[in-house]
Amino acid sequence: MSIAEIVNNNDTVAGRVFDGFIFFLIILSLFTFSVETLPGLTEEYQRYLHYSEVVISILFTIEYILRIVTAEKKTEYIFSFYGFIDLMAILPFYLVFLGVDLYVIRALRVLRIVKLTRYSVAMIRLGKAFSIAKGEVVVFLLATLVLLYLAAVGVYIFESRAQPENFQSIFDGLWWAVASLTTVGYGDIYPVTAGGKLFTFIVLIFGLGIVAAPAGIISSALTQVRNEEIKEEENQSREAERGQDSQ
Amino acid sequence: MSIAEIVNNNDTVAGRVFDGFIFFLIILSLFTFSVETLPGLTEEYQRYLHYSEVVISILFTIEYILRIVTAEKKTEYIFSFYGFIDLMAILPFYLVFLGVDLYVIRALRVLRIVKLTRYSVAMIRLGKAFSIAKGEVVVFLLATLVLLYLAAVGVYIFESRAQPENFQSIFDGLWWAVASLTTVGYGDIYPVTAGGKLFTFIVLIFGLGIVAAPAGIISSALTQVRNEEIKEEENQSREAERGQDSQ
Amino acid sequence: MSIAEIVNNNDTVAGRVFDGFIFFLIILSLFTFSVETLPGLTEEYQRYLHYSEVVISILFTIEYILRIVTAEKKTEYIFSFYGFIDLMAILPFYLVFLGVDLYVIRALRVLRIVKLTRYSVAMIRLGKAFSIAKGEVVVFLLATLVLLYLAAVGVYIFESRAQPENFQSIFDGLWWAVASLTTVGYGDIYPVTAGGKLFTFIVLIFGLGIVAAPAGIISSALTQVRNEEIKEEENQSREAERGQDSQ
Amino acid sequence: MSIAEIVNNNDTVAGRVFDGFIFFLIILSLFTFSVETLPGLTEEYQRYLHYSEVVISILFTIEYILRIVTAEKKTEYIFSFYGFIDLMAILPFYLVFLGVDLYVIRALRVLRIVKLTRYSVAMIRLGKAFSIAKGEVVVFLLATLVLLYLAAVGVYIFESRAQPENFQSIFDGLWWAVASLTTVGYGDIYPVTAGGKLFTFIVLIFGLGIVAAPAGIISSALTQVRNEEIKEEENQSREAERGQDSQ
Repeated sequence: MSIAEIVNNNDTVAGRVFDGFIFFLIILSLFTFSVETLPGLTEEYQRYLHYSEVVISILFTIEYILRIVTAEKKTEYIFSFYGFIDLMAILPFYLVFLGVDLYVIRALRVLRIVKLTRYSVAMIRLGKAFSIAKGEVVVFLLATLVLLYLAAVGVYIFESRAQPENFQSIFDGLWWAVASLTTVGYGDIYPVTAGGKLFTFIVLIFGLGIVAAPAGIISSALTQVRNEEIKEEENQSREAERGQDSQ
Repeated sequence: MSIAEIVNNNDTVAGRVFDGFIFFLIILSLFTFSVETLPGLTEEYQRYLHYSEVVISILFTIEYILRIVTAEKKTEYIFSFYGFIDLMAILPFYLVFLGVDLYVIRALRVLRIVKLTRYSVAMIRLGKAFSIAKGEVVVFLLATLVLLYLAAVGVYIFESRAQPENFQSIFDGLWWAVASLTTVGYGDIYPVTAGGKLFTFIVLIFGLGIVAAPAGIISSALTQVRNEEIKEEENQSREAERGQDSQ
Repeated sequence: MSIAEIVNNNDTVAGRVFDGFIFFLIILSLFTFSVETLPGLTEEYQRYLHYSEVVISILFTIEYILRIVTAEKKTEYIFSFYGFIDLMAILPFYLVFLGVDLYVIRALRVLRIVKLTRYSVAMIRLGKAFSIAKGEVVVFLLATLVLLYLAAVGVYIFESRAQPENFQSIFDGLWWAVASLTTVGYGDIYPVTAGGKLFTFIVLIFGLGIVAAPAGIISSALTQVRNEEIKEEENQSREAERGQDSQ
Repeated sequence: MSIAEIVNNNDTVAGRVFDGFIFFLIILSLFTFSVETLPGLTEEYQRYLHYSEVVISILFTIEYILRIVTAEKKTEYIFSFYGFIDLMAILPFYLVFLGVDLYVIRALRVLRIVKLTRYSVAMIRLGKAFSIAKGEVVVFLLATLVLLYLAAVGVYIFESRAQPENFQSIFDGLWWAVASLTTVGYGDIYPVTAGGKLFTFIVLIFGLGIVAAPAGIISSALTQVRNEEIKEEENQSREAERGQDSQ
């Protein structure tokens, strides 16, 4: 069993242990990334977090080197999507080490989460679903934007005199439209006039279906992808059976 | 290549550039319309906004004249839906210029957003979906209104004594019913008595399906329109193939 | 054309005028019922509202008498569902007249809204859908109640120490569970501890599907009823065609 | 009619009375469990609650003994799922009696709610639906978690400077992401900066479909289970008919 097999396959126990370890490292890395943002950390904890970040970055670097070394086509891996992501997972650490310590560069570490997609069927499906639904979603996005804009102008016309503080401009109306038509309803701004409330009622009854359309399209694309996968699996198992029968 | 082709077709590069320019003008116009409502604009900014409004209006006027000149049936265009919308996009500007400076007339400029519908498949689909679903939606609107009214009366009976400030009349109950049954839940008014909370639970468990019905009907009408379009495209491509085969 | 035809059919112009008038009376009656609850009404307005209530009640009484007189089977109408509703629409008025002036009796006038159901296809459909879905809904109601109770106990355990004011007992937890799992989210009570927030996340991700089940069942029953109606209409029109063909 | 029949079957009147009584005891037990948490209970009420708890526990003990005695395979029942649940329904009471009075042990009494599942078709269906959907749900849970995390980091980057109080760390961002993407929207924290609001809009329009996926999968699994049950019933009734025909 070569190192190449351990790194690139998950058929063997050693390969699965390697995958599990990288998976654990990603989660640990995201956890320390989150904990770092906690206010009032003692210096001792900060030092621990720094040490763990150093160790994680070195281990990711070893993973990156192993992946390059064991890749059949080295340049292809380096310029592939995952090659780029694996590099971005360690680059911020070395840039900070070299003195380039910008907030934005530190924040890039969160891209490590994309490394998780190597391990998830859902991610592949989501990707497929998005590429199926892309055209449809773009088409409805314009309709959603027009609806949100008209709702924003409407509520602004009704409410700007009654609540000049909350509805200072159409942009406040847009924020209200987003929070209302997605039914989140934070409750930071809402109409108080009779006209504004009636307008809200009409917009909600007719508009909920339009704003929900992109999410619905993605959902149905997901179902489509899933069904195709089930079909494919059935075809493969049937062919396997036929292969056995003909022997 | 005549001007008529540039204005009315989007098959040529020039035609697409013309369309893209008008599209950009509409978005710019809506943006300046929104920015105008921002409070605390300096006089300088207001002057810029005014200049941009003048330029946009003149360009829309040129577009309107071009569309009349290049239309095969001039009166038909002028009295068509888009002819009306194109006129409404410039009329407020000239009325203000003539001294008719009413808030309502200025607000009419927002109708420019409807000009966007020329460029969006989604708009055409939405239009078709609404005309399919119209009958159904009207039918369920009455059911929704009855449910909202009964919910309003119920919550008013339970809460008006405990919170006379928040539930002053059945109209406050109606606003609560709208915000709750669409699941927006702003949190400005909500029941505080045990009876009112139990009533809310019952109304929500059974009523969510009814209030969501109009949005659901529009959604399924949208799917129907989309499926018909896909069918039509397939038919067209099949006929095109047959045409080629028979040659 | 007899009075019986005007009252009981809506095939003729006079019949439709009668129906429209009663429809208008119901809406007017509900409107005055709502306006009565407005605080700070002047005595003059209150007198107007009282007069309108007297007129409406007398007109509904005439309607009730006409329906009895023109019914083919008088006792059947009187003891039918609509016979009962038509009586309840006028009884509160006469009871108050006789001195029985209780708040509950006055509130009974809201039952006039049920008279609207005579005019709406949606109501008939809703009725059919509910009777189809009844069994299913009852079955899932128990599941919903169990889920809400477990969520209530869970959030109470996590939050009762951190917010003894907001989570005084499991009943407060139940109210939180209702508002959260229907995604209304008034924002009057919500978890503040890390444990309570994690618990909320888990309950929401898995529980939303269960609480939404009754609404979903009613929705799909509505679709079923609609499809059956369309089928029936098609069958009728086909039979009508056959009838014409065979002639 | 033996005791075994009464305890284990619900075909006879006595069996149904027994089931109904246990059902009532469970509900009563949950009610007293909830009432106990009410603040400001007088000593008298507390004594009543204690008495009722003693009586309920003794009756559940009798039920447990009856179930063991009447079970055909005693050890199988004792180590079955319901054997365990029936024991957990009474164990806390006896442990408290023996002096082991921990809060956690008292809280275990809530497990009595699981005894309800013996009586509900919905519970069996939910169980089946969960076991069908398990794989799918786990797959999408990871996608949901990645989306929530990215949304949390995004909102934290936009808002942590404007509202350091509300967005103290990425964990606050996570709580915001959970409350927003489930559309609950408590309104305890929400973005206030233009960037944060735009980010919220984008996350909501695209993300609602993903977070709703697990609930949707459970819903469709429920439909599947229901359809299979209907099919099975039809098959059984057809076979019964054939059996009658062939006689």
